Amino acid sequence: MLQLYFFPMACSLASRIALMEAGIEARYHLAHIWTKKVLDDDSDFRVVSQKGAVPVLVLENGERLTESAAVLQYIADRKPELGLAPPPGDLDRYRLQEWLSFIGTEIHKGFLFPTFWYKDDASKASARERIWQTVSVAAARLNGRDYLVGDRFTVADAHLAWALMLLRSAGVDIAQWPELVDYLARMHARPHVKAAVGIETQLWKKMAA
Amino acid sequence: MLQLYFFPMACSLASRIALMEAGIEARYHLAHIWTKKVLDDDSDFRVVSQKGAVPVLVLENGERLTESAAVLQYIADRKPELGLAPPPGDLDRYRLQEWLSFIGTEIHKGFLFPTFWYKDDASKASARERIWQTVSVAAARLNGRDYLVGDRFTVADAHLAWALMLLRSAGVDIAQWPELVDYLARMHARPHVKAAVGIETQLWKKMAA
Ligand SMILES: N[C@@H](CCC(=O)N[C@@H](CS)C(=O)NCC(=O)O)C(=O)O
Ligand SMILES: N[C@@H](CCC(=O)N[C@@H](CS)C(=O)NCC(=O)O)C(=O)O
Repeated sequence: MLQLYFFPMACSLASRIALMEAGIEARYHLAHIWTKKVLDDDSDFRVVSQKGAVPVLVLENGERLTESAAVLQYIADRKPELGLAPPPGDLDRYRLQEWLSFIGTEIHKGFLFPTFWYKDDASKASARERIWQTVSVAAARLNGRDYLVGDRFTVADAHLAWALMLLRSAGVDIAQWPELVDYLARMHARPHVKAAVGIETQLWKKMAA
Repeated sequence: MLQLYFFPMACSLASRIALMEAGIEARYHLAHIWTKKVLDDDSDFRVVSQKGAVPVLVLENGERLTESAAVLQYIADRKPELGLAPPPGDLDRYRLQEWLSFIGTEIHKGFLFPTFWYKDDASKASARERIWQTVSVAAARLNGRDYLVGDRFTVADAHLAWALMLLRSAGVDIAQWPELVDYLARMHARPHVKAAVGIETQLWKKMAA
Protein backbone atom coordinates (compact mmCIF):
# COMPACT_ATOMS: atom_id res chain seq x y z
CA MET A 1 0.00 0.00 0.00
CA LEU A 2 1.23 3.50 -0.78
CA GLN A 3 2.04 5.74 2.16
CA LEU A 4 1.95 9.52 2.21
CA TYR A 5 3.75 11.75 4.68
CA PHE A 6 1.74 14.95 4.93
CA PHE A 7 1.11 17.97 7.08
CA PRO A 8 -2.45 19.33 7.33
CA MET A 9 -3.20 22.00 4.68
CA ALA A 10 0.43 21.98 3.42
CA CYS A 11 1.21 21.28 -0.24
CA SER A 12 0.85 17.55 0.44
CA LEU A 13 -2.91 18.21 0.40
CA ALA A 14 -2.68 18.12 -3.40
CA SER A 15 -1.24 14.59 -3.20
CA ARG A 16 -4.04 13.50 -0.84
CA ILE A 17 -6.63 14.92 -3.24
CA ALA A 18 -4.94 13.05 -6.11
CA LEU A 19 -4.94 9.76 -4.18
CA MET A 20 -8.61 10.15 -3.30
CA GLU A 21 -9.62 11.18 -6.83
CA ALA A 22 -7.71 8.13 -8.07
CA GLY A 23 -9.52 5.90 -5.60
CA ILE A 24 -6.20 4.68 -4.22
CA GLU A 25 -6.19 3.66 -0.59
CA ALA A 26 -3.07 4.78 1.23
CA ARG A 27 -1.67 5.00 4.70
CA TYR A 28 -1.22 8.62 5.85
CA HIS A 29 1.45 9.74 8.29
CA LEU A 30 1.42 13.19 9.80
CA ALA A 31 4.90 14.74 9.72
CA HIS A 32 5.30 17.96 11.62
CA ILE A 33 7.09 20.33 9.26
CA TRP A 34 8.34 22.64 12.01
CA THR A 35 9.46 20.10 14.61
CA LYS A 36 10.42 17.45 11.99
CA LYS A 37 8.76 14.77 14.08
CA VAL A 38 6.56 12.01 12.69
CA LEU A 39 3.41 11.99 14.83
CA ASP A 40 3.01 8.15 14.78
CA ASP A 41 6.05 7.46 16.93
CA ASP A 42 7.79 10.81 17.48
CA SER A 43 10.62 9.71 15.18
CA ASP A 44 12.78 12.04 13.09
CA PHE A 45 11.11 12.91 9.79
CA ARG A 46 14.51 13.64 8.23
CA VAL A 47 15.20 9.91 8.36
CA VAL A 48 12.26 9.44 5.99
CA SER A 49 13.50 12.25 3.73
CA GLN A 50 16.61 14.35 4.09
CA LYS A 51 14.56 17.29 2.82
CA GLY A 52 12.32 17.22 5.89
CA ALA A 53 9.49 18.42 3.67
CA VAL A 54 6.14 16.98 2.66
CA PRO A 55 4.93 15.36 0.46
CA VAL A 56 6.87 12.11 0.67
CA LEU A 57 5.23 9.16 -1.06
CA VAL A 58 6.51 5.75 0.02
CA LEU A 59 6.07 3.19 -2.76
CA GLU A 60 5.32 -0.50 -2.24
CA ASN A 61 8.99 -1.34 -2.84
CA GLY A 62 10.03 1.06 -0.08
CA GLU A 63 11.41 3.77 -2.37
CA ARG A 64 10.52 7.31 -1.43
CA LEU A 65 9.39 9.90 -3.91
CA THR A 66 9.34 13.60 -3.05
CA GLU A 67 8.34 16.82 -4.87
CA SER A 68 4.67 17.45 -5.61
CA ALA A 69 5.19 17.54 -9.39
CA ALA A 70 6.66 14.02 -9.36
CA VAL A 71 4.35 12.56 -6.70
CA LEU A 72 1.24 13.88 -8.46
CA GLN A 73 2.26 12.44 -11.83
CA TYR A 74 3.13 9.13 -10.22
CA ILE A 75 -0.31 8.89 -8.60
CA ALA A 76 -2.11 9.89 -11.80
CA ASP A 77 -0.24 7.27 -13.81
CA ARG A 78 -1.28 4.51 -11.43
CA LYS A 79 -4.80 4.88 -12.83
CA PRO A 80 -4.33 5.92 -16.46
CA GLU A 81 -7.98 5.13 -17.24
CA LEU A 82 -9.11 8.03 -15.04
CA GLY A 83 -7.30 10.71 -17.03
CA LEU A 84 -5.85 12.45 -13.97
CA ALA A 85 -2.90 13.18 -16.26
CA PRO A 86 -2.91 13.17 -20.06
CA PRO A 87 -1.03 10.15 -21.44
CA PRO A 88 2.74 10.43 -21.91
CA GLY A 89 3.52 11.71 -25.39
CA ASP A 90 0.42 13.93 -25.61
CA LEU A 91 1.20 17.62 -25.93
CA ASP A 92 -1.18 18.10 -23.01
CA ARG A 93 1.14 16.02 -20.84
CA TYR A 94 3.73 18.79 -21.23
CA ARG A 95 1.04 21.37 -20.45
CA LEU A 96 0.38 19.46 -17.24
CA GLN A 97 4.08 19.56 -16.43
CA GLU A 98 4.13 23.27 -17.26
CA TRP A 99 1.33 24.00 -14.78
CA LEU A 100 2.76 21.76 -12.09
CA SER A 101 6.04 23.62 -12.45
CA PHE A 102 4.43 27.05 -12.49
CA ILE A 103 2.45 26.34 -9.32
CA GLY A 104 5.43 24.75 -7.57
CA THR A 105 7.96 27.41 -8.55
CA GLU A 106 6.13 30.72 -8.93
CA ILE A 107 3.15 30.42 -6.59
CA HIS A 108 4.49 28.06 -3.95
CA LYS A 109 8.25 28.70 -3.71
CA GLY A 110 8.06 32.25 -5.02
CA PHE A 111 5.32 33.45 -2.71
CA LEU A 112 3.59 31.05 -0.30
CA PHE A 113 6.79 29.65 1.15
CA PRO A 114 8.39 33.06 1.85
CA THR A 115 5.12 34.32 3.31
CA PHE A 116 4.91 31.48 5.82
CA TRP A 117 8.61 30.93 6.53
CA TYR A 118 10.53 34.18 6.16
CA LYS A 119 10.85 35.89 9.51
CA ASP A 120 10.74 39.62 8.77
CA ASP A 121 8.16 41.74 7.01
CA ALA A 122 10.58 43.32 4.51
CA SER A 123 11.49 39.88 3.16
CA LYS A 124 7.86 38.81 2.96
CA ALA A 125 7.12 42.03 1.09
CA SER A 126 9.85 41.27 -1.46
CA ALA A 127 8.24 37.92 -2.19
CA ARG A 128 4.87 39.60 -2.46
CA GLU A 129 5.83 42.03 -5.22
CA ARG A 130 5.00 39.74 -8.12
CA ILE A 131 2.13 37.72 -6.77
CA TRP A 132 -0.57 39.73 -8.52
CA GLN A 133 1.14 39.18 -11.88
CA THR A 134 1.72 35.50 -11.12
CA VAL A 135 -1.84 34.73 -10.10
CA SER A 136 -3.08 36.64 -13.15
CA VAL A 137 -1.36 34.09 -15.39
CA ALA A 138 -3.46 31.31 -13.86
CA ALA A 139 -6.61 33.45 -14.01
CA ALA A 140 -6.04 34.18 -17.71
CA ARG A 141 -5.70 30.46 -18.39
CA LEU A 142 -9.02 29.74 -16.65
CA ASN A 143 -10.89 32.38 -18.57
CA GLY A 144 -13.41 30.24 -20.44
CA ARG A 145 -11.97 26.91 -19.26
CA ASP A 146 -13.12 24.64 -16.46
CA TYR A 147 -9.77 22.97 -15.86
CA LEU A 148 -6.11 23.88 -16.28
CA VAL A 149 -5.33 21.17 -18.84
CA GLY A 150 -7.66 19.61 -21.40
CA ASP A 151 -11.35 19.35 -20.53
CA ARG A 152 -11.22 17.33 -17.35
CA PHE A 153 -9.86 17.40 -13.83
CA THR A 154 -6.15 16.56 -13.60
CA VAL A 155 -3.60 16.55 -10.82
CA ALA A 156 -2.62 20.08 -11.93
CA ASP A 157 -6.05 21.14 -10.66
CA ALA A 158 -5.38 19.41 -7.34
CA HIS A 159 -2.17 21.43 -7.09
CA LEU A 160 -3.76 24.75 -8.04
CA ALA A 161 -6.82 24.23 -5.82
CA TRP A 162 -4.47 23.79 -2.85
CA ALA A 163 -2.45 26.86 -3.82
CA LEU A 164 -5.57 29.01 -4.11
CA MET A 165 -6.77 27.93 -0.67
CA LEU A 166 -3.41 28.93 0.78
CA LEU A 167 -3.32 32.25 -1.07
CA ARG A 168 -6.30 33.26 1.03
CA SER A 169 -4.45 32.50 4.27
CA ALA A 170 -1.46 34.39 2.88
CA GLY A 171 -3.55 37.52 2.49
CA VAL A 172 -4.16 37.48 -1.27
CA ASP A 173 -7.85 38.07 -1.91
CA ILE A 174 -8.72 36.02 -4.95
CA ALA A 175 -12.09 37.83 -5.23
CA GLN A 176 -10.39 40.15 -7.74
CA TRP A 177 -10.22 37.23 -10.19
CA PRO A 178 -13.78 35.95 -10.74
CA GLU A 179 -12.46 33.07 -12.87
CA LEU A 180 -10.52 31.82 -9.86
CA VAL A 181 -13.44 32.21 -7.48
CA ASP A 182 -15.61 30.11 -9.79
CA TYR A 183 -12.84 27.60 -10.34
CA LEU A 184 -12.23 27.11 -6.63
CA ALA A 185 -15.97 26.70 -6.04
CA ARG A 186 -16.00 24.03 -8.77
CA MET A 187 -13.09 22.28 -7.11
CA HIS A 188 -14.69 22.37 -3.66
CA ALA A 189 -17.85 20.88 -5.15
CA ARG A 190 -15.97 17.69 -6.08
CA PRO A 191 -16.70 15.06 -3.42
CA HIS A 192 -13.09 13.88 -3.13
CA VAL A 193 -11.68 17.39 -2.92
CA LYS A 194 -14.26 18.25 -0.28
CA ALA A 195 -13.48 15.10 1.69
CA ALA A 196 -9.70 15.64 1.53
CA VAL A 197 -9.99 19.26 2.61
CA GLY A 198 -12.45 18.26 5.35
CA ILE A 199 -10.02 15.73 6.83
CA GLU A 200 -7.09 18.14 6.82
CA THR A 201 -9.08 21.09 8.15
CA GLN A 202 -10.14 18.96 11.11
CA LEU A 203 -6.57 17.85 11.77
CA TRP A 204 -5.33 21.39 11.43
CA LYS A 205 -7.88 22.69 13.95
CA LYS A 206 -6.98 19.90 16.37
CA MET A 207 -3.28 20.80 16.12
CA ALA A 208 -3.91 24.50 16.49
CA ALA A 209 -6.14 23.93 19.55
CA MET B 1 11.98 24.13 -36.59
CA LEU B 2 11.83 24.59 -32.83
CA GLN B 3 12.55 28.08 -31.52
CA LEU B 4 13.88 28.96 -28.09
CA TYR B 5 13.59 32.32 -26.38
CA PHE B 6 16.51 32.62 -24.02
CA PHE B 7 18.62 35.08 -22.08
CA PRO B 8 22.37 34.44 -21.78
CA MET B 9 23.27 32.38 -18.69
CA ALA B 10 19.66 32.42 -17.43
CA CYS B 11 17.81 29.16 -16.72
CA SER B 12 17.09 28.80 -20.44
CA LEU B 13 20.72 27.69 -20.75
CA ALA B 14 19.56 24.26 -19.56
CA SER B 15 17.14 24.11 -22.51
CA ARG B 16 19.91 25.09 -24.93
CA ILE B 17 22.14 22.37 -23.51
CA ALA B 18 19.29 19.87 -23.90
CA LEU B 19 18.69 20.88 -27.53
CA MET B 20 22.38 20.58 -28.35
CA GLU B 21 22.76 17.25 -26.53
CA ALA B 22 19.71 16.04 -28.48
CA GLY B 23 21.25 17.22 -31.74
CA ILE B 24 18.15 19.28 -32.48
CA GLU B 25 18.70 22.38 -34.57
CA ALA B 26 16.68 25.32 -33.35
CA ARG B 27 16.32 29.03 -33.89
CA TYR B 28 17.38 31.05 -30.86
CA HIS B 29 15.89 34.42 -29.92
CA LEU B 30 17.43 36.57 -27.24
CA ALA B 31 14.72 38.00 -24.96
CA HIS B 32 15.89 40.60 -22.50
CA ILE B 33 14.46 39.58 -19.13
CA TRP B 34 14.72 43.03 -17.58
CA THR B 35 13.50 45.20 -20.45
CA LYS B 36 11.12 42.50 -21.81
CA LYS B 37 12.28 43.26 -25.35
CA VAL B 38 13.05 40.66 -27.98
CA LEU B 39 16.44 41.56 -29.44
CA ASP B 40 15.53 40.52 -33.05
CA ASP B 41 13.04 43.33 -33.59
CA ASP B 42 12.70 45.17 -30.29
CA SER B 43 9.18 43.73 -29.88
CA ASP B 44 7.47 43.06 -26.54
CA PHE B 45 8.48 39.67 -25.13
CA ARG B 46 5.24 39.53 -23.13
CA VAL B 47 3.41 39.02 -26.42
CA VAL B 48 5.36 35.78 -26.82
CA SER B 49 4.60 34.76 -23.23
CA GLN B 50 2.53 36.60 -20.64
CA LYS B 51 5.07 35.42 -18.06
CA GLY B 52 7.82 37.47 -19.65
CA ALA B 53 10.26 34.81 -18.55
CA VAL B 54 12.61 32.43 -20.36
CA PRO B 55 12.66 29.66 -21.45
CA VAL B 56 9.87 29.75 -24.03
CA LEU B 57 9.96 26.96 -26.59
CA VAL B 58 7.93 27.57 -29.74
CA LEU B 59 6.82 24.30 -31.30
CA GLU B 60 6.41 23.68 -35.02
CA ASN B 61 2.63 24.14 -34.71
CA GLY B 62 3.16 27.57 -33.13
CA GLU B 63 2.22 26.55 -29.58
CA ARG B 64 4.45 27.90 -26.86
CA LEU B 65 5.72 25.87 -23.98
CA THR B 66 7.18 27.48 -20.87
CA GLU B 67 8.72 26.23 -17.60
CA SER B 68 12.08 24.49 -17.70
CA ALA B 69 10.71 21.22 -16.29
CA ALA B 70 8.22 20.93 -19.17
CA VAL B 71 10.51 22.27 -21.90
CA LEU B 72 13.34 19.93 -20.89
CA GLN B 73 11.11 16.86 -20.89
CA TYR B 74 9.63 17.86 -24.23
CA ILE B 75 13.09 18.17 -25.80
CA ALA B 76 14.27 14.86 -24.30
CA ASP B 77 11.21 13.04 -25.61
CA ARG B 78 11.84 14.25 -29.15
CA LYS B 79 14.82 11.90 -29.22
CA PRO B 80 13.84 8.96 -27.00
CA GLU B 81 16.70 6.86 -28.40
CA LEU B 82 19.22 9.16 -26.71
CA GLY B 83 17.97 8.54 -23.19
CA LEU B 84 17.99 12.22 -22.19
CA ALA B 85 14.99 11.26 -20.09
CA PRO B 86 14.06 7.76 -18.91
CA PRO B 87 11.00 6.44 -20.77
CA PRO B 88 7.54 7.30 -19.44
CA GLY B 89 6.38 4.68 -16.97
CA ASP B 90 9.88 3.96 -15.63
CA LEU B 91 10.31 4.75 -11.96
CA ASP B 92 13.36 6.76 -13.03
CA ARG B 93 11.10 9.07 -15.05
CA TYR B 94 9.55 10.18 -11.76
CA ARG B 95 13.04 10.58 -10.30
CA LEU B 96 13.80 12.87 -13.23
CA GLN B 97 10.66 14.88 -12.48
CA GLU B 98 11.63 14.96 -8.81
CA TRP B 99 15.02 16.48 -9.61
CA LEU B 100 13.66 18.92 -12.16
CA SER B 101 11.17 20.08 -9.54
CA PHE B 102 13.76 20.29 -6.77
CA ILE B 103 16.10 22.39 -8.90
CA GLY B 104 13.30 24.63 -10.18
CA THR B 105 11.62 25.15 -6.81
CA GLU B 106 14.28 24.95 -4.11
CA ILE B 107 17.48 26.06 -5.84
CA HIS B 108 16.12 28.39 -8.52
CA LYS B 109 12.96 29.98 -7.09
CA GLY B 110 13.96 29.51 -3.46
CA PHE B 111 17.43 30.99 -3.77
CA LEU B 112 18.81 32.11 -7.15
CA PHE B 113 15.79 34.16 -8.12
CA PRO B 114 15.62 36.11 -4.81
CA THR B 115 19.37 36.66 -4.91
CA PHE B 116 19.26 38.24 -8.35
CA TRP B 117 15.86 40.00 -8.19
CA TYR B 118 15.09 41.02 -4.60
CA LYS B 119 16.20 44.58 -4.01
CA ASP B 120 17.32 44.71 -0.38
CA ASP B 121 19.93 42.73 1.48
CA ALA B 122 17.62 41.59 4.29
CA SER B 123 15.35 39.88 1.79
CA LYS B 124 18.27 38.26 0.00
CA ALA B 125 19.53 37.04 3.36
CA SER B 126 16.16 35.42 4.11
CA ALA B 127 16.36 33.45 0.87
CA ARG B 128 19.93 32.48 1.72
CA GLU B 129 19.15 30.84 5.04
CA ARG B 130 18.46 27.37 3.67
CA ILE B 131 20.74 27.21 0.68
CA TRP B 132 23.42 25.17 2.39
CA GLN B 133 20.87 22.54 3.37
CA THR B 134 19.33 22.59 -0.11
CA VAL B 135 22.59 22.18 -2.00
CA SER B 136 23.58 19.41 0.42
CA VAL B 137 20.64 17.35 -0.81
CA ALA B 138 22.02 17.43 -4.35
CA ALA B 139 25.56 16.74 -3.11
CA ALA B 140 24.35 13.71 -1.14
CA ARG B 141 22.66 12.36 -4.27
CA LEU B 142 25.88 12.69 -6.26
CA ASN B 143 27.98 10.92 -3.69
CA GLY B 144 29.14 7.89 -5.68
CA ARG B 145 27.02 8.66 -8.75
CA ASP B 146 28.02 10.34 -12.00
CA TYR B 147 24.56 11.62 -12.91
CA LEU B 148 21.41 12.63 -11.04
CA VAL B 149 19.19 9.93 -12.54
CA GLY B 150 20.15 6.46 -13.74
CA ASP B 151 23.64 5.96 -15.13
CA ARG B 152 23.67 8.48 -17.98
CA PHE B 153 23.31 12.17 -18.69
CA THR B 154 19.71 13.40 -18.61
CA VAL B 155 18.06 16.80 -18.87
CA ALA B 156 18.06 16.90 -15.06
CA ASP B 157 21.84 17.19 -15.32
CA ALA B 158 21.47 20.06 -17.79
CA HIS B 159 19.28 21.81 -15.23
CA LEU B 160 21.58 21.17 -12.28
CA ALA B 161 24.73 22.08 -14.21
CA TRP B 162 23.17 25.47 -14.97
CA ALA B 163 22.09 25.95 -11.35
CA LEU B 164 25.58 25.13 -10.05
CA MET B 165 27.16 27.66 -12.43
CA LEU B 166 24.78 30.33 -11.14
CA LEU B 167 25.33 29.41 -7.50
CA ARG B 168 28.89 30.59 -7.95
CA SER B 169 27.75 33.99 -9.22
CA ALA B 170 25.31 34.12 -6.32
CA GLY B 171 28.15 33.80 -3.84
CA VAL B 172 27.79 30.15 -2.84
CA ASP B 173 31.16 28.48 -3.00
CA ILE B 174 30.55 24.93 -4.13
CA ALA B 175 34.13 23.98 -3.22
CA GLN B 176 32.74 22.78 0.13
CA TRP B 177 31.02 19.90 -1.73
CA PRO B 178 33.72 17.94 -3.59
CA GLU B 179 31.02 15.78 -5.25
CA LEU B 180 29.61 18.90 -6.87
CA VAL B 181 32.98 20.21 -7.97
CA ASP B 182 33.70 16.88 -9.69
CA TYR B 183 30.21 16.73 -11.15
CA LEU B 184 30.42 20.22 -12.62
CA ALA B 185 33.83 19.43 -14.10
CA ARG B 186 32.32 16.30 -15.70
CA MET B 187 29.51 18.38 -17.11
CA HIS B 188 31.84 21.04 -18.50
CA ALA B 189 33.86 18.29 -20.17
CA ARG B 190 30.86 17.34 -22.35
CA PRO B 191 31.33 18.92 -25.78
CA HIS B 192 27.72 20.11 -26.07
CA VAL B 193 27.64 21.58 -22.57
CA LYS B 194 30.92 23.33 -23.26
CA ALA B 195 29.66 24.69 -26.58
CA ALA B 196 26.35 25.92 -25.11
CA VAL B 197 28.08 27.63 -22.19
CA GLY B 198 30.65 29.11 -24.58
CA ILE B 199 27.97 30.68 -26.77
CA GLU B 200 26.09 32.18 -23.85
CA THR B 201 29.19 33.40 -22.03
CA GLN B 202 30.19 35.29 -25.19
CA LEU B 203 26.72 36.82 -25.54
CA TRP B 204 26.66 37.72 -21.88
CA LYS B 205 30.03 39.47 -22.11
CA LYS B 206 28.91 41.37 -25.19
CA MET B 207 25.76 42.55 -23.40
CA ALA B 208 27.63 43.53 -20.27
CA ALA B 209 30.21 45.46 -22.28
N1 LIG C 1 9.40 21.63 -3.83
C1 LIG C 1 8.60 20.89 -2.91
C2 LIG C 1 8.23 21.78 -1.75
C3 LIG C 1 7.84 21.01 -0.56
C4 LIG C 1 7.57 21.96 0.60
O1 LIG C 1 8.02 23.11 0.62
N2 LIG C 1 6.80 21.48 1.57
C5 LIG C 1 6.52 22.28 2.74
C6 LIG C 1 5.05 22.25 3.10
S1 LIG C 1 4.03 23.04 1.89
C7 LIG C 1 7.33 21.71 3.88
O2 LIG C 1 7.25 20.55 4.22
N3 LIG C 1 8.19 22.55 4.47
C8 LIG C 1 9.05 22.17 5.53
C9 LIG C 1 10.40 22.72 5.30
O3 LIG C 1 10.63 23.19 4.15
O4 LIG C 1 11.21 22.73 6.23
C10 LIG C 1 7.33 20.38 -3.59
O5 LIG C 1 6.93 20.98 -4.60
O6 LIG C 1 6.77 19.37 -3.14
N1 LIG D 1 9.55 28.64 -13.28
C1 LIG D 1 10.28 29.04 -14.46
C2 LIG D 1 11.17 30.21 -14.09
C3 LIG D 1 11.61 31.00 -15.27
C4 LIG D 1 12.46 32.18 -14.83
O1 LIG D 1 12.42 32.60 -13.66
N2 LIG D 1 13.24 32.72 -15.77
C5 LIG D 1 14.04 33.86 -15.46
C6 LIG D 1 15.44 33.71 -15.97
S1 LIG D 1 16.33 32.43 -15.08
C7 LIG D 1 13.38 35.05 -16.13
O2 LIG D 1 13.17 35.06 -17.34
N3 LIG D 1 13.02 36.06 -15.35
C8 LIG D 1 12.36 37.23 -15.82
C9 LIG D 1 11.26 37.58 -14.90
O3 LIG D 1 10.91 36.72 -14.05
O4 LIG D 1 10.74 38.69 -15.00
C10 LIG D 1 11.09 27.89 -15.01
O5 LIG D 1 11.44 26.99 -14.25
O6 LIG D 1 11.39 27.88 -16.21
